[in-house]
Amino acid sequence: MSLPLQPAPARRGSRRQPQASRNAILEAALAEFAQEGLVGARVDAIADAAGVNKALLYYYFRDKETLYGAVLDRFFAPLHQRIMTVTERPGTAGERFLQYVREHFDAIAESPHYARIFMGELMTASRGGSTQLEQLLTRYLVPIGQRVFGLVHEGIAGGEFRKVNAAQFVPSSIGAIVHYFLTAPLRQKFNSMIPVREASIEARRAAVLDFIAAALFSDREAGIRLAASIAEHPATTHPSALSRKKGKRK
Amino acid sequence: MSLPLQPAPARRGSRRQPQASRNAILEAALAEFAQEGLVGARVDAIADAAGVNKALLYYYFRDKETLYGAVLDRFFAPLHQRIMTVTERPGTAGERFLQYVREHFDAIAESPHYARIFMGELMTASRGGSTQLEQLLTRYLVPIGQRVFGLVHEGIAGGEFRKVNAAQFVPSSIGAIVHYFLTAPLRQKFNSMIPVREASIEARRAAVLDFIAAALFSDREAGIRLAASIAEHPATTHPSALSRKKGKRK
Repeated sequence: MSLPLQPAPARRGSRRQPQASRNAILEAALAEFAQEGLVGARVDAIADAAGVNKALLYYYFRDKETLYGAVLDRFFAPLHQRIMTVTERPGTAGERFLQYVREHFDAIAESPHYARIFMGELMTASRGGSTQLEQLLTRYLVPIGQRVFGLVHEGIAGGEFRKVNAAQFVPSSIGAIVHYFLTAPLRQKFNSMIPVREASIEARRAAVLDFIAAALFSDREAGIRLAASIAEHPATTHPSALSRKKGKRK
Repeated sequence: MSLPLQPAPARRGSRRQPQASRNAILEAALAEFAQEGLVGARVDAIADAAGVNKALLYYYFRDKETLYGAVLDRFFAPLHQRIMTVTERPGTAGERFLQYVREHFDAIAESPHYARIFMGELMTASRGGSTQLEQLLTRYLVPIGQRVFGLVHEGIAGGEFRKVNAAQFVPSSIGAIVHYFLTAPLRQKFNSMIPVREASIEARRAAVLDFIAAALFSDREAGIRLAASIAEHPATTHPSALSRKKGKRK
């Protein structure tokens, strides 16, 4: 650990706006980890970019690994929360599954840095290196996975979905959602060579929902219409969400 | 460049089995680049693993970057060739598009190292680093993309496919094909926690073809049946391939 430039504050409350400093550090760390990876990231650079001294950074986050864990939590905890919330709302399995797709898509679209950090974790894991994947799985990804698998099983049992294999269908859907963001630099070059204009994020969201619904619902036309409706309405204003406030199904 | 351990051979023909040595170097380089990335890979380690001296390696491949380019070519040239071949065969747009899906899937399933190397290229590109993506696009990926986009347009024009947007549908399909392999370490941990048994590669191939066909074909049931048939028959023995030898469509 490097020498602090200023003495560390005695306790959290002694700094004004501790939450603002903490957030600034996490934002700067996100950009640095996405750019340099865990190994290459420099704590000095993060403190500089956040406009705080290193002592404060180490006061909030014991070391670089702790900071890295906090950056991952800051993405996965809200993702987990959002998905759990939309999939608990009243609605058919199909409505709730497509709401999951929308939340997963939006979370990544809003924070493209995370796709890179997560891919870095996967590459490190595939090389046998140490990662946070175990913790992410236990806290967030296994609960999300069980919820989503459960929705597929529920939709099949109720006849709303085709008899797909959830353990295959869910990873295929995630690929359709996520891979687009991972390959952004390639697609941009590709599009410039064709040439074709990069589509809007709204068009991409609608296309992903349409693709998955078309493959999943027993009544394909009904699934496609539902996907179009969910693509247009954010979860909080979607009919399913509104009907919950009224205490009844739409 | 390090000192060669032995003098370089005067010309290629002076070594016995030059092709075997070259292949051994490329195999060793593939494993080393997948494990360490371009920057971390050590030419010494590659020469050792290939059982050749470094002089011979530098005789065949001028420097590490040249060797890296040759490793990428060794995957993408056959991939390009395979896809161009199966999509040129007689058959409907649907048959040829699903054959493309199968070839893309099989190429990655057979060489999981490449998924990691390619993802490393994408991550380097997204960090603004220098990559071989431009060359890969020009030589292989733009021609493949144009062929595959053309098949989607052809299938829509002929009524075989739904009116999807090819520029959206193709990346979604690629995500369903590829992402599974990139997330292997995560899925294995996830499956062990659920617990669920990892599916066979044949089951995965069939599920991907089913997913894409179910989303694409106007007559979904016909598309699903075609996908199942193509999943079971390697391209060389698939009816479309056989019928070509007989000079007629099945």
